[in-house]
Amino acid sequence: MIIDCHGHYTTAPEPHQKFREAQLVRVKDSTLPVPAPGRIGDDEIRESIETNQLRLQRERGADLTLFSPRASAMGHHVGDESVSTAWTRACNDLVKRVVDLYPANFAGVCQLPQSPGVPIAHSVDELRRCVRDLGFVGCNLNPDPSGGHWKSPPLTDRHWYPFYEAMVELDVPAMVHVSASCNPNFHATGAHYINADTTAFMQFIQGDLFQDFPTLRFVIPHGGGAVPYHWGRYRGLADMLKRPPLEGHVMRNVYFDTCVYHQPGIDLLVKVIDTDNILFGSEMLGAVRGIDPQTGQYFDDTRRYIDALDISAADKRRIFELNVRRVYPRLDAQLKARGQ
Amino acid sequence: MIIDCHGHYTTAPEPHQKFREAQLVRVKDSTLPVPAPGRIGDDEIRESIETNQLRLQRERGADLTLFSPRASAMGHHVGDESVSTAWTRACNDLVKRVVDLYPANFAGVCQLPQSPGVPIAHSVDELRRCVRDLGFVGCNLNPDPSGGHWKSPPLTDRHWYPFYEAMVELDVPAMVHVSASCNPNFHATGAHYINADTTAFMQFIQGDLFQDFPTLRFVIPHGGGAVPYHWGRYRGLADMLKRPPLEGHVMRNVYFDTCVYHQPGIDLLVKVIDTDNILFGSEMLGAVRGIDPQTGQYFDDTRRYIDALDISAADKRRIFELNVRRVYPRLDAQLKARGQ
Repeated sequence: MIIDCHGHYTTAPEPHQKFREAQLVRVKDSTLPVPAPGRIGDDEIRESIETNQLRLQRERGADLTLFSPRASAMGHHVGDESVSTAWTRACNDLVKRVVDLYPANFAGVCQLPQSPGVPIAHSVDELRRCVRDLGFVGCNLNPDPSGGHWKSPPLTDRHWYPFYEAMVELDVPAMVHVSASCNPNFHATGAHYINADTTAFMQFIQGDLFQDFPTLRFVIPHGGGAVPYHWGRYRGLADMLKRPPLEGHVMRNVYFDTCVYHQPGIDLLVKVIDTDNILFGSEMLGAVRGIDPQTGQYFDDTRRYIDALDISAADKRRIFELNVRRVYPRLDAQLKARGQ
Repeated sequence: MIIDCHGHYTTAPEPHQKFREAQLVRVKDSTLPVPAPGRIGDDEIRESIETNQLRLQRERGADLTLFSPRASAMGHHVGDESVSTAWTRACNDLVKRVVDLYPANFAGVCQLPQSPGVPIAHSVDELRRCVRDLGFVGCNLNPDPSGGHWKSPPLTDRHWYPFYEAMVELDVPAMVHVSASCNPNFHATGAHYINADTTAFMQFIQGDLFQDFPTLRFVIPHGGGAVPYHWGRYRGLADMLKRPPLEGHVMRNVYFDTCVYHQPGIDLLVKVIDTDNILFGSEMLGAVRGIDPQTGQYFDDTRRYIDALDISAADKRRIFELNVRRVYPRLDAQLKARGQ
């Protein structure tokens, strides 16, 4: 079984985007009525999925995708908490409808109603709703709801603890995932995403978060940002900062996906990071949608890179399936309930 | 000949640090007298160099280091422009004294008197002084003088053009190098440095800087941040954003050093990046000072990683010497004048 831990509903039907646009207009003119989420028929959802994510899932031979709202559109920095909350609920409800239409192909991962300066405890209710009521198996936690200005405390700060308590209680992991950048220095998918991944990992080295929450789990997407490439630097910094070795200090709780869009990158990832810490992911669709002229294949067809690795079939199965089931126990339970 | 393009005077004698401390005290109490740079004897400089950078240079078999002030101490975000200017001149003057004491072993690279919100044109005078009067061969340009808050425009913005005009006129490259971070999210050497490298590269993809300045040259340190590991992503993003292929669009003007502290990282760097774009560097001393328990060697002894590469002797010579001489023509001229 091949489980893609990192997929986004980047192709949501137009009424959903129209709702967002109406929100944005109202952010600038609060005399307008509060817009309501767009009315979307099942057929619209089916078409948006079957011609995109589901088609690619089948073409590339994956079985199931952990599916979350479009990350770049989370836009936590836009408007206030009420805007973020309404948008987040609409996004998560839409993902739930996809999962209901294609329960064998998608499992839900939720966006959170984060907003700059708002306590993260305010996101707990939506997490509970998505996990308990909608059957979601994880969440995307944005370490920078200010959108490239980095105004929240580090992820190891007690600021975040109320949310971690809920994650532990519900036994769901978080993918550390920023959204769009409103800082012109940072291109979203080319800089902000990768920087956030690198930043989060270094914060985990500096802190003692996993002493306080031994079962808390994070997936750092995009192959862990710069971390595997600089693995020597991080091992050395842990030593220099008198932190414990990374294996016990961070890597019992942190996982990297395989959203690295060329073979040499995946080769490196698997060479330096323990196989148990690597989860198959594609990020489709899609940060990078084109075909690599060097290979003739889509950049984000990450399954090919794993297939080509010179590792055992057992290790590949860990990356493709078993690690994801271990990190997302609610997914595992759902699959087992279906006899999978 | 082995030239290390990335070394910092991290071991400057105590009076230099005392001067900085006096500056910092005065930032908080402007009624205090403006401090003067510390008085430092040649013997103090000799000891600080011979027991550190020069010893390691000899032990590791390098010949010459492009030597600049301690990057994390540039602290452009501290105090105002006058503070930055006085500190910068003192730092550069000290590097000049090192070069004068050991002309065969060190060549100067200058810090700039950047300050948040101050036009970069104000840094041109110090660049000219260092290149023309002190014989320096390059500079370190900080894309984020706000120290982790990223308040300057991207490096491709016309904001930076007056400085680029001077770089082109003087025919010196810049290493893109941030300083300390006053944003608690970013550990300096573990996140801020690497993020800045990644960020700068993506800015170069988005912009058309090298159409305007065809001979402008940047070295992106720390192995190019996350870029080589995500080379497929960057090639794909260039394509998706309808930018030209990276080879002609960015890689005629941008170089990566080898400050990547483990063999798999260097292997990847050399595999995906054209040898002509890679400059030997160690970043000593030193972001990471310890010994790698996996190898028994210092993390930052990057020469070993190059030596171990399965590439031709000619390619190694490019990385160790020829590329640096090409990117830093003033260094090349100095070496040729000495018959090297």
